[in-house]
Amino acid sequence: MALMLFTDFGAADLYVGQVESVLDRYAPGVRVIHLLNEAPCYNVQCSAHLLAALAKQVPRGHVFLAIVDPGVGTDRNGIVVRVDGRSYVGPDNGLLSVLWGRGTVKGAWRITSWSSEAAVSFHGRDVFAPVAAAVATGEFPNENVKQIAAPEVLLPSDDLAQIVYIDHYGNAFTGLRGEGLSTERRLRIRRMELAHARVFHEAPTGQGFWYVNSIGLVEIAMPGTSAAKMLGLRVGQAVEWVGAP
Amino acid sequence: MALMLFTDFGAADLYVGQVESVLDRYAPGVRVIHLLNEAPCYNVQCSAHLLAALAKQVPRGHVFLAIVDPGVGTDRNGIVVRVDGRSYVGPDNGLLSVLWGRGTVKGAWRITSWSSEAAVSFHGRDVFAPVAAAVATGEFPNENVKQIAAPEVLLPSDDLAQIVYIDHYGNAFTGLRGEGLSTERRLRIRRMELAHARVFHEAPTGQGFWYVNSIGLVEIAMPGTSAAKMLGLRVGQAVEWVGAP
Amino acid sequence: MALMLFTDFGAADLYVGQVESVLDRYAPGVRVIHLLNEAPCYNVQCSAHLLAALAKQVPRGHVFLAIVDPGVGTDRNGIVVRVDGRSYVGPDNGLLSVLWGRGTVKGAWRITSWSSEAAVSFHGRDVFAPVAAAVATGEFPNENVKQIAAPEVLLPSDDLAQIVYIDHYGNAFTGLRGEGLSTERRLRIRRMELAHARVFHEAPTGQGFWYVNSIGLVEIAMPGTSAAKMLGLRVGQAVEWVGAP
Repeated sequence: MALMLFTDFGAADLYVGQVESVLDRYAPGVRVIHLLNEAPCYNVQCSAHLLAALAKQVPRGHVFLAIVDPGVGTDRNGIVVRVDGRSYVGPDNGLLSVLWGRGTVKGAWRITSWSSEAAVSFHGRDVFAPVAAAVATGEFPNENVKQIAAPEVLLPSDDLAQIVYIDHYGNAFTGLRGEGLSTERRLRIRRMELAHARVFHEAPTGQGFWYVNSIGLVEIAMPGTSAAKMLGLRVGQAVEWVGAP
Repeated sequence: MALMLFTDFGAADLYVGQVESVLDRYAPGVRVIHLLNEAPCYNVQCSAHLLAALAKQVPRGHVFLAIVDPGVGTDRNGIVVRVDGRSYVGPDNGLLSVLWGRGTVKGAWRITSWSSEAAVSFHGRDVFAPVAAAVATGEFPNENVKQIAAPEVLLPSDDLAQIVYIDHYGNAFTGLRGEGLSTERRLRIRRMELAHARVFHEAPTGQGFWYVNSIGLVEIAMPGTSAAKMLGLRVGQAVEWVGAP
Repeated sequence: MALMLFTDFGAADLYVGQVESVLDRYAPGVRVIHLLNEAPCYNVQCSAHLLAALAKQVPRGHVFLAIVDPGVGTDRNGIVVRVDGRSYVGPDNGLLSVLWGRGTVKGAWRITSWSSEAAVSFHGRDVFAPVAAAVATGEFPNENVKQIAAPEVLLPSDDLAQIVYIDHYGNAFTGLRGEGLSTERRLRIRRMELAHARVFHEAPTGQGFWYVNSIGLVEIAMPGTSAAKMLGLRVGQAVEWVGAP
């Protein structure tokens, strides 16, 4: 079992190391894996769809510390959810609601108390990390949480027809799930229509295409170059299927 | 207990992995936490103030490998300092002197011998990492160090009225400590005067403000956007309090 | 013994965490070290030379998961090679062939079977990581590999007179090995001729120089600034010795 970080704290910045030092303190023997610390900044909806897809790639039993939290310091709540064998700790702002909506066996808890010395601007370190460590070490549920029926903020959990992430190769992930899709379909983005290719080397050079990527999402790519740069793609842009399904 | 890296070796570069492989060799069971590997390049003074604040966020007992070392290959010395329950290994160029100056219970050692095969340009891997591993495993002090009264290079340890770090959100950390400050004070930077806000969502949209951040330093931020970009901020710029304290 | 990642998956991206979660699953107690996840994208030749130099910095016994794989999804094979006490798992596209060509005691295996659920676009996670974990835990060779005489794709293993890597300081690594070089030699790059300096502070300010870096390669640098920016350097550019050896 490992603790998985999914945050927008920045892979190169000074935040995740501080979080890890808290996890080390309260869950000393547990491996910490930096799954993604460059989740779309401030973008809860796109991050929620990315997390829902990414989490399924990880074996059951793992604990996620998931934080994209533009409302830190407001009165939004913190929650723990358990969905189909995986646990998640983070803000109750919709980030955990897409995977919640898609899950079957589930439970939810509100975080009701934390250290009075917690920094108002860094609940990731001072509120969520200690709870994640408690979940990881089996000391959960405890007196600092209260069971609730469901997260308070629930975003729609069906597919999101937007670009939700762009990787460093310039491939653009959408919030569309790939399962069962006809490869005849064409994907429209910024007035361009893209055809399907199974893998990179089967796509025509210099042309954008869509395929189902390794976390099960429809992705826009271009052989040997950055689709994002060549096609002018950004997180949040709308995509659309054209033609018959 | 963990080994904490604080360097300017680059989070994405090939240096920290080599350092970690040495730590793994000499301190096999000890967790390595990458606290910050993007400390202000070549800027010992700003890094020294950032480290002094950051280190206090980490429990006592940890060992820091702290390296911002533009003089690697010159005859500057290497040192180990122990200050109030935490240990630090790095160059004797001022980097460890701010936390030294602020500490109470302390000791210092000069590193007097190391492998003859050490690369002239990478003391982090070949000189400092083996010593940090020895400290972490309790084999310290040993025959490779000599106790000294204090570090040789001592920078002033009072507040530094400069921007010392800019995070990936574009928030600018200053070297001013926040404790006991009146929230009536205004902070001047580049001819602008900024008021205080307690947290991001209490600040007016599109306006810079100052607040005390999660490592206890005065920070310049802007709600929902990059203060550094909007206000033209860079590491090393001077800041100043205006009005009565 | 540790598992060493050398990939072009991106240090800040969502790929290495997924790989690490597979390593954690199949080799639970083994440390994972991120040696470099920003190897020159799609550039197998430059990466092969960088890896050959870098690997020698790491003690024998370690296992490398080495992936720069523009042909993922084609019918290129996967291999395991053992060279002089270190093991390497990756694509058979030349990436492991430079260190192979320079080695003495060696063995090679082709990966012949893997999970039918492996993603076509992410063999790093679904094919190579499970094999690397097996090597790390001693469950190798196993029924999923077949011994072969040598890798199929063999690049020349003598020095490569090109820039193979640029670090975040702006220093440019070449594929030239430094051992036994006369310091009288001058290195030509983009019609400029650079002299030798032993270390940074012995080089004239504002002037490029070459020296033998901490992984034994000839490197182009400039005191206190980015040689890459000042001299217009990029991975793949040719370099050349001028004058008598």
